[in-house]
Amino acid sequence: MSEDLESLLYQMVHHLSGIEMGTSSIEPVSETSYKLDDNRDFAIPLGVSNHHVHLSQADADILFGACYHFKKLKDLSQPGQYALEECVMIVGPKGVIEKVRILGPVRKETQVELTRTDCFKIGVKAPLRLSGEIDNTPGCTIIGPAGSVQLEKGCIVAKRHIHMSPADAKRFGVENHQRVSLELPGERGGIIQHVIIRVKDSFSLECHLDTEEANALGVTGKSKVRLVK
Amino acid sequence: MSEDLESLLYQMVHHLSGIEMGTSSIEPVSETSYKLDDNRDFAIPLGVSNHHVHLSQADADILFGACYHFKKLKDLSQPGQYALEECVMIVGPKGVIEKVRILGPVRKETQVELTRTDCFKIGVKAPLRLSGEIDNTPGCTIIGPAGSVQLEKGCIVAKRHIHMSPADAKRFGVENHQRVSLELPGERGGIIQHVIIRVKDSFSLECHLDTEEANALGVTGKSKVRLVK
Repeated sequence: MSEDLESLLYQMVHHLSGIEMGTSSIEPVSETSYKLDDNRDFAIPLGVSNHHVHLSQADADILFGACYHFKKLKDLSQPGQYALEECVMIVGPKGVIEKVRILGPVRKETQVELTRTDCFKIGVKAPLRLSGEIDNTPGCTIIGPAGSVQLEKGCIVAKRHIHMSPADAKRFGVENHQRVSLELPGERGGIIQHVIIRVKDSFSLECHLDTEEANALGVTGKSKVRLVK
Repeated sequence: MSEDLESLLYQMVHHLSGIEMGTSSIEPVSETSYKLDDNRDFAIPLGVSNHHVHLSQADADILFGACYHFKKLKDLSQPGQYALEECVMIVGPKGVIEKVRILGPVRKETQVELTRTDCFKIGVKAPLRLSGEIDNTPGCTIIGPAGSVQLEKGCIVAKRHIHMSPADAKRFGVENHQRVSLELPGERGGIIQHVIIRVKDSFSLECHLDTEEANALGVTGKSKVRLVK
């Protein structure tokens, strides 16, 4: 559907529902108008994350040597985030995961994001957490080409979440930290619950699932999902 | 809840809803009565299947040698089905999966059940299918201690399904091959769609998901799920 047509539809809806027009054609949209457009319903792009590591500068220095120059592999969909060419090895009491990608930029604290299957494989009981919430999480050993780090904490399984800007949050009628459900299309589809809304100026609209969730639910990085409140 | 109490509740429900009592206390139960008991709602036990292989006698003879005597590891929940101590290696164009369990008894045709992640790992595009429906599926190579087999077909990703007896089907008000949805409890829970009902005299009540689905949805072999029509 063209943007003009979309804009026209919103205008019609606003007039019909008696809502005064905003300055932008995409806000505010009432829930009624939201239901009018099926294409718009499956509107949230899906981003699928494989297991990965965020490093602190101190840990990066130990693993790769001080002054090591990391090479960017590619930008990620969230502005300012990128994948590096470098990988590390993640080791737990029961096993090893080789070639785990490092994402940049460096963070205040090192964090290891695993799938549930990874956790069983290496024997680490990582809890379901939002990125950054690593208090009371188990550690693991990270092996790099120049050294190794024994983490005291930092292993999590990423909790399903949706990144969005404040404008998108307004458009969907949701707030930061709100729990919503998401409908996924296809033969392995369904409705997944307890998906956390994360609102920030710098976020672009995207739902994040890990590879295990995406494979189990038959969706990919090309899928679009529907927000259900 | 004790069986007596459960039976009494059903009798009350039957009287209240005007349904004539059957000979058994567990049938028939109207949808209204079904909703009265929350414990009963999450009533279907979950069985979680890791990747596995069913062998034909001919393929078993090639892989392990004619007259090889397989050793039973344990009985499975479906009557007459069991896991063997023996494993094989599954090989595709892009990789290998070691130690894939063989389930018995032998079948008419060899079948390899993989997770979607397995498929990516070994480079086999297995479709989502019910067990036994292997026409137009890709093959792979199976390696055993006495020889190897190049399958022409037989690789599938198991489609979500629920085994039940005719009595259970009547109790839940569903038919063989019907598609239903299932509600899964917990922090990674939700409602999964397109779950196929499989009715057979010998089946005991159990929903089957593969390890990837169970891990992604935060459930285990100890979980119970709720049928949603």
